Amino acid sequence: MSSDFFEMEKTSGTARRGRLHTPHAEIETPVFMPVGTVASVKAVPQDTLEDLGAQIILGNTYHLYLRPGVETVRQMGGLHDFMSWRRAILTDSGGFQVFSLNELRKVTEEGVTFRSHLDGSSHFFSPESAMEAQIGLGADIIMAFDECTEYPADPARVRASLELTARWAARSKKYFQEHKHEVPWKSSSQSSALGRQDTQTPRFARSDNDGAAQRGDGEENTNGWQLGTDNWQLLFGIVQGGMDRNLRKESAERTIEIGFPGYAIGGLSVGEPRQLTREIVESTLEHLPKDKPRYLMGVGTPEEIAEYANLGVDMMDCVLPTRAARHGLLFTSEGKISIKQARYAQDRGPLDPNCECRVCQRYSRAYLRHLYAANEVLAQVLNTIHNLSFYLDTMQRVRHSISLGE
Amino acid sequence: MSSDFFEMEKTSGTARRGRLHTPHAEIETPVFMPVGTVASVKAVPQDTLEDLGAQIILGNTYHLYLRPGVETVRQMGGLHDFMSWRRAILTDSGGFQVFSLNELRKVTEEGVTFRSHLDGSSHFFSPESAMEAQIGLGADIIMAFDECTEYPADPARVRASLELTARWAARSKKYFQEHKHEVPWKSSSQSSALGRQDTQTPRFARSDNDGAAQRGDGEENTNGWQLGTDNWQLLFGIVQGGMDRNLRKESAERTIEIGFPGYAIGGLSVGEPRQLTREIVESTLEHLPKDKPRYLMGVGTPEEIAEYANLGVDMMDCVLPTRAARHGLLFTSEGKISIKQARYAQDRGPLDPNCECRVCQRYSRAYLRHLYAANEVLAQVLNTIHNLSFYLDTMQRVRHSISLGE
Repeated sequence: MSSDFFEMEKTSGTARRGRLHTPHAEIETPVFMPVGTVASVKAVPQDTLEDLGAQIILGNTYHLYLRPGVETVRQMGGLHDFMSWRRAILTDSGGFQVFSLNELRKVTEEGVTFRSHLDGSSHFFSPESAMEAQIGLGADIIMAFDECTEYPADPARVRASLELTARWAARSKKYFQEHKHEVPWKSSSQSSALGRQDTQTPRFARSDNDGAAQRGDGEENTNGWQLGTDNWQLLFGIVQGGMDRNLRKESAERTIEIGFPGYAIGGLSVGEPRQLTREIVESTLEHLPKDKPRYLMGVGTPEEIAEYANLGVDMMDCVLPTRAARHGLLFTSEGKISIKQARYAQDRGPLDPNCECRVCQRYSRAYLRHLYAANEVLAQVLNTIHNLSFYLDTMQRVRHSISLGE
Repeated sequence: MSSDFFEMEKTSGTARRGRLHTPHAEIETPVFMPVGTVASVKAVPQDTLEDLGAQIILGNTYHLYLRPGVETVRQMGGLHDFMSWRRAILTDSGGFQVFSLNELRKVTEEGVTFRSHLDGSSHFFSPESAMEAQIGLGADIIMAFDECTEYPADPARVRASLELTARWAARSKKYFQEHKHEVPWKSSSQSSALGRQDTQTPRFARSDNDGAAQRGDGEENTNGWQLGTDNWQLLFGIVQGGMDRNLRKESAERTIEIGFPGYAIGGLSVGEPRQLTREIVESTLEHLPKDKPRYLMGVGTPEEIAEYANLGVDMMDCVLPTRAARHGLLFTSEGKISIKQARYAQDRGPLDPNCECRVCQRYSRAYLRHLYAANEVLAQVLNTIHNLSFYLDTMQRVRHSISLGE
C-alpha cells in the first residue's frame, strides 16, 4: 500500500500513519504544516520552528511572487536557501489567494488576471505560469493551479468550475514535466552560480549540512535523502466539486486519471457549515487512492485537525494558529483563551498547565496579557510559539495514537 | 578600592573592570544594559536575551507605572517574577521620560505633574512617589528622582535645576531608607501571597532556581547571592549640571555628600554635540568616587560605549541598538548597514561576516532585506537580536581588553 516516496507504517480504522519522502526531508504523517506566507512563519525564527518540531512549512506563491519575486528566490537557490530552512516546504499554486484576495480578478480558459493587493498592478496567472513560479521557488511539494469554487454556487457553476480545474490540472502537469529540471537546487546554472558565490554564503550553508559540502545534482541532504535525478518536486493535484458529493467524486476521478503523486482536497473552509465540511471530506477521501498522501487544504481548529487525521487525511495547513495568536486568541488543553481579558491581569498561572512549550514553561498569563495590552511585539512572538506548539503537539499525539492502534 | 557590593578586579589607564553584586545577580562591568521599556526588550524573548549574554536590563518606571501599573507588578512579586527574568534589572526614576515625552508637564518644588501619553490622564511624580514606584517594581538598582536639565539652558537655569535635583536626591534617599523593606521580594506580605498562590505559579518558579524552593527573605538566588536582610535594592544618585564643568563638579559633590552606593551621570545625549558629551563625561568622572559604580545614562553608538568604558564608566544603557534595529539600521564590524536598501536584495552574505550571533550564522542579507521590505515581524526579532549581540559583544571585548591591560 506504499509508493516509492510514501510509506504507510500503520493504519487504525480510517486513520493512517506514514512517512513521506520529499527532496529535502522526510515527513511523518499525519502532519500539520504551519503557514509561512512570505518565507516567514510570522514572528517565529527558523530555529524556534525546528525546536517546535515543525517538519514542513507552507509558502504562498501569490505573496512570494509579489515580494520578493520568484526570480530573486530562484537566484538565491530557492526558498530553502533563501529563508535558511533545511526541512520540507510546500507552496500553494497562488490560485486560492488570487480568488480570495482579489475582487477585480478575471477568469478565462487561459488563466486569471488579477491586481496586486500591494500596489494595484495587473498580473496574470495560468497553470503554466503558476508552475513556472513554483518550480522557481523550489518547494518540495507544489500544487496544480486550480479554481477554488466559491460557496454557495449552483450545480452548473460547480460543474463548470471543476471541469476548468481538471483542464488546468492537465496543463499544470504537462508544464511541470517539461520544466521540472529547472528547479534551482537541481539546475546546473544555479549550481555554478552558488559555487562562484561560495565565499559570501552564510556559514550555515557550509556547516549545517553534515557531509554535504556543496549544493547540486545528486547531493545528499540533511536527512540522507538524495536530491538525485529521480527525486523531483512532488506536484499534487487538487480535487474540487463544491459541496456536492457526486461532483467531488467526479473531480477526484478526473484528477486521478491525470495522475499525481498526491491529492489535495480544495474548496473547503470557504464559508460552509463545519458539519458539511466534514461530510465532504469523508466522502471525498473514499475516492482517493490509499497509497498516496492526501492533503486537506486550509483547515482547521485543533479538534478538527485531529478529527480529519482520524478520517484518513495525511496533511493539513491552516493560518488559524498563527493568525489567532497575533489577535491574542490562544489554544490550550483547557479550551480557547482570549489573553487580552482583564481577568488574566494578575493571573500567575501558565497559559496552559499541560503544555511543555517554552512559553508555558516560563511566562505567566499576567505577563502575556500585559504584553498584548501594551502592544508589544513579544506578544506576537510568544503567542505564536504557543499556538504552533499546541497544534504540532496535537498532531504528534494523533500519530502516537495511530501507532498504538487507538 | 572596592566596596562590599562592588569589587574592582583590574584597572587599565582610566578603564576599570569590576564585579557588581546586586540582589538578584552579579554583573561584570563595564556593562551595557539593553532597554526593556515595559518589561520587555522589544521583540526578544527572555531566553534569547540570556543566550546573548545580557546581564542586566533596564525598565522604564514611567511606562511601567502606566502599564501594567506598579501595583500589578508588585502583586506579581516584582518585575523579576512578572517578566520571568532572573538576572539583574535597573529602573530609571521616571523623571527623564516625564521630561522628554510630556510637553504639558508642570514642575514645582514638590514634584512634576504630567499627562499620560496613552490617554492624556493627569499624574504626579515626586521623589517620594518615584521611590515608592521603584520599590514596588523591585528592580535591583533604582534611581533617584531628578530633573533632566534641557539643552541648551542658561547658567542660572542649570544651577537652579541642579539644586532642585540635589534636594530631590535627599528626599529620594530619605523615602527609600524608610520604605526599602517594602520591596516585593523581601516583604513578608508578598511572601505569604506567593505561598498561597504557589499551585498557580508557572513552573520556572519551582524548577529554575536550583536549591531555592521558595521566594522570600534570605533566599538564595540563582547566582548564589543572598537576598538577605542586608542586601537591599541599590539606590543610585544622579549628577546633573548641564554642559558646565564647574556645575557638574558641584552637582557631583552635593550628590556624593548625600551618599549613594553608585552614581549616574544624567542630562547628556539631550541634543548637545558629541564632543561636548565626551568632555563632560570625562570631567565629571574625575569627581566621582573610584570605589563606586558609575553609570552613564542613555548613550550611545558602539564606538561611544567602548570609548566611555575606557574613560572609566562602568554601566551604560541606550535604546539605540533596539530602536535602530526596528528601523532596519544594523551595526556591524564593517560599519552601519541600512538593510532596506535594494543593493542587499540578492546579497547571499551574512549581515556581519565577523559576528557569531545566531542571525549572522543562519540568514543572508537578502533574507533580512526581504523581511524588512515585507514588513514581517521577524525582521524586528532578528534585527534586534543582531544589534544587541553586537553591543554586548563590544562590551565583552572591552572587558577582555581591560583584563589584558590594553
